Amino acid sequence: MKKITLLGSTGSIGTQTLEVLDCLEGYEVLALAAGKNIQLLARQIEKYRPERVNVERQEDVKFIKSKFPKVDVLWGLEGLVELCSDTRNDIILVATSGKIGLKPTICAIEKKIDIALANKETLIMAGDIVMKKARENNVRILPVDSEHSAILQCLGDKNNDPYRLIITASGGPFLYKTRDEMGHSNALDALKHPRWHMGRKITIDSATLMNKGLEVIEAHHLFNMDYDDIKVVIHPQSLVHSFVEFIDGSMLAQVGFPSMHIPIQYALTYPERKKGIKTDGFSLFGQQMSFDRPDFKKFPCLKMAYDAGRAGGSAPVVLNAANEVAVNNFLEGKINFLDIEKTVEKALSAHSVISNPSLDEIFEIDIETRKKYGA
Amino acid sequence: MKKITLLGSTGSIGTQTLEVLDCLEGYEVLALAAGKNIQLLARQIEKYRPERVNVERQEDVKFIKSKFPKVDVLWGLEGLVELCSDTRNDIILVATSGKIGLKPTICAIEKKIDIALANKETLIMAGDIVMKKARENNVRILPVDSEHSAILQCLGDKNNDPYRLIITASGGPFLYKTRDEMGHSNALDALKHPRWHMGRKITIDSATLMNKGLEVIEAHHLFNMDYDDIKVVIHPQSLVHSFVEFIDGSMLAQVGFPSMHIPIQYALTYPERKKGIKTDGFSLFGQQMSFDRPDFKKFPCLKMAYDAGRAGGSAPVVLNAANEVAVNNFLEGKINFLDIEKTVEKALSAHSVISNPSLDEIFEIDIETRKKYGA
Repeated sequence: MKKITLLGSTGSIGTQTLEVLDCLEGYEVLALAAGKNIQLLARQIEKYRPERVNVERQEDVKFIKSKFPKVDVLWGLEGLVELCSDTRNDIILVATSGKIGLKPTICAIEKKIDIALANKETLIMAGDIVMKKARENNVRILPVDSEHSAILQCLGDKNNDPYRLIITASGGPFLYKTRDEMGHSNALDALKHPRWHMGRKITIDSATLMNKGLEVIEAHHLFNMDYDDIKVVIHPQSLVHSFVEFIDGSMLAQVGFPSMHIPIQYALTYPERKKGIKTDGFSLFGQQMSFDRPDFKKFPCLKMAYDAGRAGGSAPVVLNAANEVAVNNFLEGKINFLDIEKTVEKALSAHSVISNPSLDEIFEIDIETRKKYGA
Repeated sequence: MKKITLLGSTGSIGTQTLEVLDCLEGYEVLALAAGKNIQLLARQIEKYRPERVNVERQEDVKFIKSKFPKVDVLWGLEGLVELCSDTRNDIILVATSGKIGLKPTICAIEKKIDIALANKETLIMAGDIVMKKARENNVRILPVDSEHSAILQCLGDKNNDPYRLIITASGGPFLYKTRDEMGHSNALDALKHPRWHMGRKITIDSATLMNKGLEVIEAHHLFNMDYDDIKVVIHPQSLVHSFVEFIDGSMLAQVGFPSMHIPIQYALTYPERKKGIKTDGFSLFGQQMSFDRPDFKKFPCLKMAYDAGRAGGSAPVVLNAANEVAVNNFLEGKINFLDIEKTVEKALSAHSVISNPSLDEIFEIDIETRKKYGA
């Protein structure tokens, strides 16, 4: 039995991870951590019988404790760190949103526990620190999102180094809109993603292509690739989840129905594959695929992400924080869609990059940026 | 230095193999074997300085010997067997056309020499015998054609068994023609292949989809797959060279410009990849791909190949021989395009399948079928 701890169990990736585990033999849920959705967490505890759980707020401990007196109930960041320090874990799936998962993830790595990573901030904010620790501790950082999973699948467990990564992007809801139309779009327009059903923040990031830019930075860390060797291709049908080009000019691609179940399961069973959740029913027959060059002028967030990645150090921290507060402001109707990119641009140009920031400096810069450019 | 013998050096695959070797370090041509193109063979000997060569006809020995007195010049089938029995070989690339390569290939396998296989007849006629010998002698049979190479690349050197193979087919020149139009087509129409430049026989096989049927039989042997788990998908753009579907529902595809250089080189460097012949310049940008169900009624040769493969034993020998003589008759204007399938159908229904034919029986059935349905 492989023991797993799931951080962010009530979110989109968390619930889909439990669906995957429902169909996968040989896994046991050691611990669950959730935010504020205590009702759902209670149902999950009932079904998966974890030994320990973590909640965000102290006030929710009592409710869980009253329903499940035998369960060890922890709370807050300290609780998360405690769950991640449990060396009985074979793997920890980090599907928390935001930076809350960063410190617990680093603790888990120090305890030599493999990480299945669905949290963007971990590598965007602290990719250098996290990957260095992973190498030192011989720990695997297994991506859970579809693009990086596709790359990992194309690489397999072979010793063939990739020559170039080509990350696919659906292009989001504004692919065929003009800049002028984008400027006049409200949150409702921007939330109409053509292919993927995701959270609000990530859907807006798809509309600006910032999402793809953040994935480029993650790919740089995960696969130790130069930014020059990571390309983005617009593929509106979202059937190819990314390509790897090898030194001999051959390319491999991972293909399939847009579903998170395969990447979640692959991260758990890597390097093997297992028959798990039913993913039949996808047929190539009748499928069309097209591939186009991304327009960096129309989507400057993508370019800014490359630039921040190349600048390195604290630059991606600022990119991420400024973007997040700007997206929130847009979703609340406080700013225009094109103000998102302006906010990020302003934040980046005002920032003096620190080359090798410590974790404390990273958190400090994150908080400062949010204060300065947020509501 | 890896030592290589190249059978069929003056043909399309042979000359491209030498182009690949021009750009690949660490390989040495031990021997070359050609057919009747003695002038080209002489130029190849001058450039690659093989120790031994083989010619098809005894009368050509003298010419080569007079130009290259130090080269050991052999001829005919016996000469081929001699070259293939040379245990100094690390790999033998079999790019002869027709059945001439079959016995030499089996000799090489018995000497535990790896085979890079570009010859269709080897597996179509004697797949059971060849693969059994390869397993017994722990010899690799590495495919050189683009579809099977794509499958091998998707599998890599992983221990992940394929769940299903999906072989791509361009659909050939008659994809959008009616059966009636096909019936009225002459050799010139049928030779207009939209994507690949190949020999005449194989181009006609692309027009009937027999080519794809033969590849299904080869895939059955190469990858030890049931016929039910080998599918064909029509992909007119020929950019995806085949797919592998795994047990978890994920698919990998190999993608690239339609060129034989990559499959040839991969067979030589497997399981590694090397920077070799320049294959840059292929860009995904602006590419369209479509995938459709093959029409077994319009292209009955594809169905007959599946049927012959499932029947096994001597059935594919008859399929192959009847098809080859019929294609020749069509190319010579003696029969109608749709008579190709009729000839194959007649030959198969008249044949009583022998389950485990010996090599002698296989050659006998091949000759008989050619006599009966040929000119």
